[in-house]
Amino acid sequence: MPSRNDISAEERLIARYFQPLATHPGALGLGDDAAILTPPAGCDLVLTTDGVIEGVHFFPDDAAGDVARKVLRMSLSDLAAKGAAPLGFLMSVALPASINEEWLAGFAAGLGDDACQYACPLLGGDTDRTPGPTAIEITALGAVPFGRMVRRSTAKGGDRIVVTGTIGDAALGVRLRRDQELGHRWPLSEAMRAHLLRRYLLPEPRTALAAAVLQHASAAMDISDGLAGDLAKLCRASSVGAEIDVARVPLSEAVKAAIAADPDAFDPVLTGGDDYELLLCMAPESLPAFGQAAASAGIVVTEIGGIVAGEGARFVRDGRVLAFARPSYSHF
Amino acid sequence: MPSRNDISAEERLIARYFQPLATHPGALGLGDDAAILTPPAGCDLVLTTDGVIEGVHFFPDDAAGDVARKVLRMSLSDLAAKGAAPLGFLMSVALPASINEEWLAGFAAGLGDDACQYACPLLGGDTDRTPGPTAIEITALGAVPFGRMVRRSTAKGGDRIVVTGTIGDAALGVRLRRDQELGHRWPLSEAMRAHLLRRYLLPEPRTALAAAVLQHASAAMDISDGLAGDLAKLCRASSVGAEIDVARVPLSEAVKAAIAADPDAFDPVLTGGDDYELLLCMAPESLPAFGQAAASAGIVVTEIGGIVAGEGARFVRDGRVLAFARPSYSHF
Repeated sequence: MPSRNDISAEERLIARYFQPLATHPGALGLGDDAAILTPPAGCDLVLTTDGVIEGVHFFPDDAAGDVARKVLRMSLSDLAAKGAAPLGFLMSVALPASINEEWLAGFAAGLGDDACQYACPLLGGDTDRTPGPTAIEITALGAVPFGRMVRRSTAKGGDRIVVTGTIGDAALGVRLRRDQELGHRWPLSEAMRAHLLRRYLLPEPRTALAAAVLQHASAAMDISDGLAGDLAKLCRASSVGAEIDVARVPLSEAVKAAIAADPDAFDPVLTGGDDYELLLCMAPESLPAFGQAAASAGIVVTEIGGIVAGEGARFVRDGRVLAFARPSYSHF
Repeated sequence: MPSRNDISAEERLIARYFQPLATHPGALGLGDDAAILTPPAGCDLVLTTDGVIEGVHFFPDDAAGDVARKVLRMSLSDLAAKGAAPLGFLMSVALPASINEEWLAGFAAGLGDDACQYACPLLGGDTDRTPGPTAIEITALGAVPFGRMVRRSTAKGGDRIVVTGTIGDAALGVRLRRDQELGHRWPLSEAMRAHLLRRYLLPEPRTALAAAVLQHASAAMDISDGLAGDLAKLCRASSVGAEIDVARVPLSEAVKAAIAADPDAFDPVLTGGDDYELLLCMAPESLPAFGQAAASAGIVVTEIGGIVAGEGARFVRDGRVLAFARPSYSHF
């Protein structure tokens, strides 16, 4: 006889926490082997995968809902950088036995909020027990008009370089989180501390700018491993050089206060990870229209330099080219 | 000045081991934030994600190449069950510090072999260090003609139930792997032992049957959590019942020998996981053409029962309905 025993604990977990998020009709209520996605007509799909591991990308005491939102936002940031509109995502979660229902409920609530806010519904997933730390991986799909994905490799000499938001908040935020002592070395107000910590915890993907990126950017990427290293990647991909006027790199008041008191804090601002801002190249004549689109979206954008002949990204301050010990975040 | 220091160890690892596998033009040599996929005209995309964790889904001393092939084949099995032709995959790998170059080289070689064999190229990925066990997650994409994905929920009363290959090999293979003593209790030849161990280690996705599944199956899924539990899922999804003639369930010589000596080995044959065979429902009149397609592909298929009114999957042997302590593999 069929009974509740036919339904495994894994199925119950999925039904309780994740099925309510599977609002896309192609998710089939997470009740099939696979999801169906009918691609929008005339579009290419843009595919990106990103993940977080407890103890590596987030702290064990981070709120579950923030962890969920962070990992989805990491992928949304990639889509925005490519000029792509989100279509949906697949998620795998590896859960240690210590995870309880409260954690799962918080995780699902945070994930559902962002899936709704960014119009990026859950399409499918995979749930496993792990003897290791909690790990979440998201593969997100977006759409761009056929042949139009904005790449890293198409920057041109003469392009101006623009970034969204402010740079280095997350890099100092994670240092503050790891080392309470820094809070005394850096003369930060409570609001400044909260700003840095929050920027590490929860990036703001620039989804609202995706259409303007598509329209105006000649090349783009998101800044996830530090401005200096990521710009170097873009330069290598495009076979160009870049020159950045360090004085123009947009910094929050909190970062400015930290650097003023502690010059050592400056390097990580340019080389630390987790900004999830956009790094954009565009022709000078595109700057006004892009700036207007950004203003309409309520997103600050700043021109910080230009693409030049040659190779490598040069960060110039007071006429001197800065040297970084470690230009880019790397796991290895 | 640009120097080799601009290139992180993570980039070098990706360039050395994974870039050679990124043969799809939309992978952009793994050198961008995202991959591009132009969907085939008139098609829906079929999306599935599956992963393995060391110590949960594979043994620490499994060959790295086999681990890679297993995780890709798990997703390929899902695509085949949905009638979908593979388009490509994204992969995330979480690697502990103990992983060495030899392991990575073997992993990449195995993955590359299967990506080529199954015409499913690497589109993109994500690489992280983990303090936990090695974990690999794959999201695979396939294509079916618009609106045609074969589902679990569309079985009809009167359908016949068909499975590919043999059932239960992997369930006994993993028991043999865990408990050497079973090798003495079960009178297995060396070839039989090797067969069971191999079937656990390396499933055979039925990709060659995808077109025939699309043409003939009214409903289908792959058997990953045990025939009994997976058939129960299909019955629930389709709001039907099923009756299986246990004597017709196709068993390998190795499984027959184990069961003959150890009747306790029978339950896991029907309820253990990792078969990665297909469970198909089809109208009786489709059986001959499907059988011919399978014979052409060199894949054995066996009719084991039928869809009936009511609910639940009944496994009947000698006129009695079997009861299983735990009908389905579950991680939770």
